[in-house]
Amino acid sequence: MRVLAKDVKAAALEGGKIVEVSGWVHRIRDLGAVNFIILRDRSGMIQLVLNEKTDLTHESVITVRGEAALNDKAPGGAEVRVSSLEVLSASVPDLPFQVNGDVNKVGLEAILDQRTLSLRNPKISAIFKVQATIVDAFSSALRGMGFTEIKTSKLVAGSTEGGTELFEVEYFDKKACLAQSPQLYKETMVASGLERVFEVAPAYRAEKHDTPRHLNEYISMDIEMGFIESELELIEVEKKVLAHIFEEVANRNSAELALWKDHDASVPEADAVFNAPVISYEEALKIANKESEAGKGGRIFDINPEAERHVCRWAQREKGTGLVFVNEFPRRYRPFYTYPSGTSGTMSFDALFRGLEITTGGRRQHDYNALLEVLPRFGLKAENMEGYLSVFKYGCPPHGGFAIGCERLTARILGLANVKEASLFPRDRKRLTP
Amino acid sequence: MRVLAKDVKAAALEGGKIVEVSGWVHRIRDLGAVNFIILRDRSGMIQLVLNEKTDLTHESVITVRGEAALNDKAPGGAEVRVSSLEVLSASVPDLPFQVNGDVNKVGLEAILDQRTLSLRNPKISAIFKVQATIVDAFSSALRGMGFTEIKTSKLVAGSTEGGTELFEVEYFDKKACLAQSPQLYKETMVASGLERVFEVAPAYRAEKHDTPRHLNEYISMDIEMGFIESELELIEVEKKVLAHIFEEVANRNSAELALWKDHDASVPEADAVFNAPVISYEEALKIANKESEAGKGGRIFDINPEAERHVCRWAQREKGTGLVFVNEFPRRYRPFYTYPSGTSGTMSFDALFRGLEITTGGRRQHDYNALLEVLPRFGLKAENMEGYLSVFKYGCPPHGGFAIGCERLTARILGLANVKEASLFPRDRKRLTP
Repeated sequence: MRVLAKDVKAAALEGGKIVEVSGWVHRIRDLGAVNFIILRDRSGMIQLVLNEKTDLTHESVITVRGEAALNDKAPGGAEVRVSSLEVLSASVPDLPFQVNGDVNKVGLEAILDQRTLSLRNPKISAIFKVQATIVDAFSSALRGMGFTEIKTSKLVAGSTEGGTELFEVEYFDKKACLAQSPQLYKETMVASGLERVFEVAPAYRAEKHDTPRHLNEYISMDIEMGFIESELELIEVEKKVLAHIFEEVANRNSAELALWKDHDASVPEADAVFNAPVISYEEALKIANKESEAGKGGRIFDINPEAERHVCRWAQREKGTGLVFVNEFPRRYRPFYTYPSGTSGTMSFDALFRGLEITTGGRRQHDYNALLEVLPRFGLKAENMEGYLSVFKYGCPPHGGFAIGCERLTARILGLANVKEASLFPRDRKRLTP
Repeated sequence: MRVLAKDVKAAALEGGKIVEVSGWVHRIRDLGAVNFIILRDRSGMIQLVLNEKTDLTHESVITVRGEAALNDKAPGGAEVRVSSLEVLSASVPDLPFQVNGDVNKVGLEAILDQRTLSLRNPKISAIFKVQATIVDAFSSALRGMGFTEIKTSKLVAGSTEGGTELFEVEYFDKKACLAQSPQLYKETMVASGLERVFEVAPAYRAEKHDTPRHLNEYISMDIEMGFIESELELIEVEKKVLAHIFEEVANRNSAELALWKDHDASVPEADAVFNAPVISYEEALKIANKESEAGKGGRIFDINPEAERHVCRWAQREKGTGLVFVNEFPRRYRPFYTYPSGTSGTMSFDALFRGLEITTGGRRQHDYNALLEVLPRFGLKAENMEGYLSVFKYGCPPHGGFAIGCERLTARILGLANVKEASLFPRDRKRLTP
């Protein structure tokens, strides 16, 4: 029976137990008659002592049997004294880059091109262990608040956002599009009586720009809920969700956070989340301009990426938190279905975290006639939106929701410079492989 | 503060408490001076007593305040005696079908066309409450066995299965395809050292046939794991996963199962799962033919849908379980990457549940040279498969995996005649909306 690397020490403490371990050859220290091999498996690393010459290559997959023994000098305090060794899969000797080297020196393109190898570096796989926790904690926080998980179609007949940044699909004899968001479907599910729903699924934006904050395919963590009065209730839900995610990452991923210490990886305390300021768009713009001025920067006209960084820097300094909610976005910046507030505002918000927008959300218009009235002002025609509008014909409660970009949140927790690092197989204008 | 329908009785027991409830008008019994309204929310139904005339329409969304009172004649044993009523969203009076009627009399096309309304029928929304449990229990069972959740791209450069049933996407100046399965990516993640991974995500098949067992977009619940010797270890994992799913559905969804009692909805006991027979393809074919002969049916030449029903009927009668694992499929029925067994067999399996294939899985070929050798026999060229093959160059453990079709499992638990009923927004050759 195979034991994991992390369990060898316990076997050694039982005294002279024979164990079987399997994994990848991480490092070979060839001393001629004696070889020290560091073996890597999903649980960590263990030293193997091999009393013979070897022609093993790095990254080959092996299974060994031998005595588990304590050794203070070995990583983890134990080792396996090998009596038999089997090569399950030999690696070619020439690797595109050294898995056991400093991953900071490997370029992003090589890391993405060589996913099989780059993910073997513990620092790289750490990103996706944290991401798995984020997805799980997002879901469990919402289940605890009475939300039902849904799975909606990503093949849609047209856009609900009225945008043009859509990927087209040949769907038998029709044209379909890849969904930009589950917006319509989330609203349908609220109106259908489930009231509170969430979904974790891919979303698609055919945006041509290639920046460190954009992906053409990303994991959208969406919620929608009925019977709310304003975006403030949504912000409260997001605070609870984020606090739970951060708590779970702190509990389960301390080793992974430690690997990214050089990038200031960390999660905020619950207090810092619940005390995160909620400021209006106008206030945020003032703060961004003050910060910019203080840094001898130029005038800022809207909440662009530069403004997001300024506002988060201000919040960190003045409020002790890297999380800020900006609400009351002007009408012109929000989609047609956003619920109005006052004459030119909306009940909408963004969440900014450590300099990056991680969430857009808001209350939606649920009144059929109000939607009919607003469509022409956004250049939309009711006759093209019948599917969307029908949701509001048969009784739809006041509702709203938001989406958290999973890769962005992952990147901001770990201090990654580019969101692509937080996508297993990122898609951009030039990248369709691996 | 709003209370849910299910909590009104507790408020009534406190004696004369004023409560606020919100939801949809499910049924109106108009007695002139007194109206009895059944209000529906996400938790269930509650009777409202309204001492005035009303022009409320069915399915309108309302909020009422009033005294919570016990009433043995009311559904659930309590009611709200309304003192104030607010209409949040009026429904048009003419509904495409009656939400509070017998949903068995509504045709499938109408149910799918009118999702906002059909999902309001408790019997229909029950399907998706069960499905949410399936997704959650699948994930938690695997997390408990050391699996990491992954999210992989659904936009791929080509097919790994060698098939032609792909949807094409206009990806900037390139052509991409929608992924048929996360096969390559699951294998990459095993080879990358995570060893054990799972994913719940959409998968796409551009199959033209329209049957009660097919969807062009479905939710695939995938796993892949390293360091296995044969498909038997995968079957053991699937048994554990299914037993956990069934247990959680029994725990959380007894009300939903009861709504589908007329379709024999139920989940098997853990014993029936762990004792499910594992029979070879040849045995299964013999059993199917015996069953067919006994029923005066014709000769069966492979494990087709008819054979699946025969084999499951046999297992139910002879072994007391509706679950059967069929392994050792002949080479010609399996994709090139399936690990061979003997001269013409493979280490592969299907899981059949209540007459329907719900899983295909198997051990995969992990040896680079063996893959190179097998490709031409499947009409494939190594130079077109470099991305796939590179996964096996740098040390890949013996591994395998399987996928459970989420809609199929949901349908077989509830006794649904068509898998489309178990998809919120199903896609078929003719259906791209809603």
